[in-house]
Amino acid sequence: MTPDRPLLLNAFAMNCVGHINHGLWTHPRDRTADYTDIDHWTGVVRTLERGLFDGLFLADIVGAYDVYQGSLDITLRESIQLPLNDPIPLVGALLPATRHLGFGITVNLTYEHPYLLARRFATLDHLSRGRVGWNIVTGYLDSAARAMGLPAQPEHDGRYDMADEFMSVAYQLWESSWDADAVIRDRAARVYTRPEAVRPVRHHGEHYRVEGVSLWEPSPQRTPVLYQAGSSGRGQRFAARHAECVFISGQSRDGARALVRGLREQAVREGRRAEDIKIFMGASVVVAPTDALAQEKLREYIHHASPEAGLAHFASGTGIDFSRYGMDEPVAPPGTGRAGQGDAMQSAVKLVTGGPRPRTRRELLAEMALGGRYALITGSPQRVADEMIQWARDTGIDGFNLARTVVPECYDDFVDWVVPELQQRGAFKTAYAEGTLREKLFGEGPLLPARHPSRSIKANP
Amino acid sequence: MTPDRPLLLNAFAMNCVGHINHGLWTHPRDRTADYTDIDHWTGVVRTLERGLFDGLFLADIVGAYDVYQGSLDITLRESIQLPLNDPIPLVGALLPATRHLGFGITVNLTYEHPYLLARRFATLDHLSRGRVGWNIVTGYLDSAARAMGLPAQPEHDGRYDMADEFMSVAYQLWESSWDADAVIRDRAARVYTRPEAVRPVRHHGEHYRVEGVSLWEPSPQRTPVLYQAGSSGRGQRFAARHAECVFISGQSRDGARALVRGLREQAVREGRRAEDIKIFMGASVVVAPTDALAQEKLREYIHHASPEAGLAHFASGTGIDFSRYGMDEPVAPPGTGRAGQGDAMQSAVKLVTGGPRPRTRRELLAEMALGGRYALITGSPQRVADEMIQWARDTGIDGFNLARTVVPECYDDFVDWVVPELQQRGAFKTAYAEGTLREKLFGEGPLLPARHPSRSIKANP
Repeated sequence: MTPDRPLLLNAFAMNCVGHINHGLWTHPRDRTADYTDIDHWTGVVRTLERGLFDGLFLADIVGAYDVYQGSLDITLRESIQLPLNDPIPLVGALLPATRHLGFGITVNLTYEHPYLLARRFATLDHLSRGRVGWNIVTGYLDSAARAMGLPAQPEHDGRYDMADEFMSVAYQLWESSWDADAVIRDRAARVYTRPEAVRPVRHHGEHYRVEGVSLWEPSPQRTPVLYQAGSSGRGQRFAARHAECVFISGQSRDGARALVRGLREQAVREGRRAEDIKIFMGASVVVAPTDALAQEKLREYIHHASPEAGLAHFASGTGIDFSRYGMDEPVAPPGTGRAGQGDAMQSAVKLVTGGPRPRTRRELLAEMALGGRYALITGSPQRVADEMIQWARDTGIDGFNLARTVVPECYDDFVDWVVPELQQRGAFKTAYAEGTLREKLFGEGPLLPARHPSRSIKANP
Repeated sequence: MTPDRPLLLNAFAMNCVGHINHGLWTHPRDRTADYTDIDHWTGVVRTLERGLFDGLFLADIVGAYDVYQGSLDITLRESIQLPLNDPIPLVGALLPATRHLGFGITVNLTYEHPYLLARRFATLDHLSRGRVGWNIVTGYLDSAARAMGLPAQPEHDGRYDMADEFMSVAYQLWESSWDADAVIRDRAARVYTRPEAVRPVRHHGEHYRVEGVSLWEPSPQRTPVLYQAGSSGRGQRFAARHAECVFISGQSRDGARALVRGLREQAVREGRRAEDIKIFMGASVVVAPTDALAQEKLREYIHHASPEAGLAHFASGTGIDFSRYGMDEPVAPPGTGRAGQGDAMQSAVKLVTGGPRPRTRRELLAEMALGGRYALITGSPQRVADEMIQWARDTGIDGFNLARTVVPECYDDFVDWVVPELQQRGAFKTAYAEGTLREKLFGEGPLLPARHPSRSIKANP
């Protein structure tokens, strides 16, 4: 199997115990319960860098999953993204152990002020020498809104309008307040920064007001690499306009291909190039030296997995309390157009109801055992490499966000066995390119290209 | 000179170039312009830990100094706390290089939501194994308010009322949402967290509303060590109630002694013990093997210092544009009671006007050369050690926040020369105590003591 182009690879993780493949923290070899230990994470990122991974992509969510059984009970018992720590201090702690690995960090902009969030990312970009990305999310949980003192989520499209304005302010702060030659550090002349090369941002918009110079000097990438995962119509428009990397859930090949084509076409309509968006598909991989051993390992993992925890997670994603259905009762399509219904939720609902017929609770549970909403790829290193390449050829994706299974062995297995197979097929790089994350991903400069819409954002709207 | 008790020592720094002793970035041996480089900071914290420093105390400010000459020109040219990066990712990056050093991190609560800020500190407390503190500030710059979209700062006492409510919410999130035995990580029983040991915080206050469980499991200290620097009447009341460490500016011995006594008396009135507050005084130290060499080094430093930058910094602290006065004109006391006037500002104004007569611009410039608002201690290691101990005996302070001069040599000088002298006099520890920052500072447990007012904060006011 020869690839169209080398694949990109992110490890998909979260600063918590149970992320996607729930229940595996109970596996005797699993160490995700050590998520508060820097040494644990340092081991992970060293393995990823040994395997030439492009990035560690860290999810985050404000709020807790309380839809299933109308409570947090199983969420707490099975640690379904709760407890959940902030990803930003963790990324700080992992920078010294890495040199090339990128870090995609999820931050929900709804509860942040652009002036401070932009500085936080600029600081990370400085400290990492240009290796950070921001996964822009607007959230979808009512439990988050309540935690933050609001009665409910703002409605879906309104959140994206707010996000567009947030980005407009952030671009001004990152890109236009300080000229590239503002900082000269001239000791003899006693000039650190040339005042005439710095100007205030003045933004008086509907949702945000900012008046002042950016507090930071330009970082290597200025704007972090922009990730997004919107899959609704409005979410796709936002992604096509802003995102450099888009994360899509595994689904049917036809569905993925249509989504990929749609995103690239919309990007072109925004004045960008089709290849200006790198598309990563979520997948779980279980690999062993032979197909038979991989199937055995899969069975062993599934033995420790918690399909019910998967369903409880999925319940908050869809807004459907699956516990209220009998095991063999088809799960009815939920009401649509609900305020607060997010992209992840909409696409998840489509998964439940989009097949030939609504699935039963028992069928859903079986799907949740491992992989969940993501493609599950199991087999020998050869088979896994071939399947990954086939997915890319069939759908036009650029690479994968690999969900963790049993940590850290899933990373060692992949790096030791799959990476060499991909390399042999010309489907994966054999060394890191130099430069920032943006340069590594796109092979151009460290900054957003001139054709990115940020460059034509008008100041002072 | 024998001490009353061993001194505590913090290095006082900021994620920027010019912090307190302005202009020294132009010194040929100074490396503060490398503030975006993790290796630079790693060298600093390794030296501090070699010298058994208790903490690295990181200042931060939202906003820029624009009072002097009504512009940012000198602020940018001399890099007076601008550019300025976020301290939190930096602290994350310094955790792997350290094992005992504490980190006091300044965050202005005015622009934060307690639900997210509390999680950020809990995450740092987990990753550091209980080594973080929060320096609680409410800000005083109108430029910050404008940057954040407000017409001006909220008035001074109102900011402290808001801060009291913020703390009340934060205590509930840190201390009472998860019981100590909530997390059991029982793989066989498939119970990570016992749901019955976790409860939502419900706070519907004047400034904040929160409804939900804390997203994080209890960290080693739960509540970070609480630092504060309030010196106004209202600020002192806040400090006496909440703070475990208080930072005071260097001033006259009599002024410092009165402040220290007042703080301890108020703490006792709050049901705490006098020794429940550790008081750190700001100081700059220039040390060399002999007094003569130290004076020579001081002259060399002053040659690179920028008194005008010091005055520009002080201008934003006092709200007085000193550039409008003639060199030999006494600087008039500014109007008092101005809305937005902060603690730092009030005490700074007192410094300018509180002497026998208002000082002239020329006199102020001379004071700004090195040390500024902080005590300047210069001499041989013996002399510096004696003076530090004398300050502590005269005023009742517990230790010092040492402002940086020429970095990194100021840290090496202090650790190599002064620390052994202090140790010889029994005025400094000879090894770190084990445990969290709170245990190291107070010799009790890792959590806030039962007599701290946080323990009697009522939920659901």
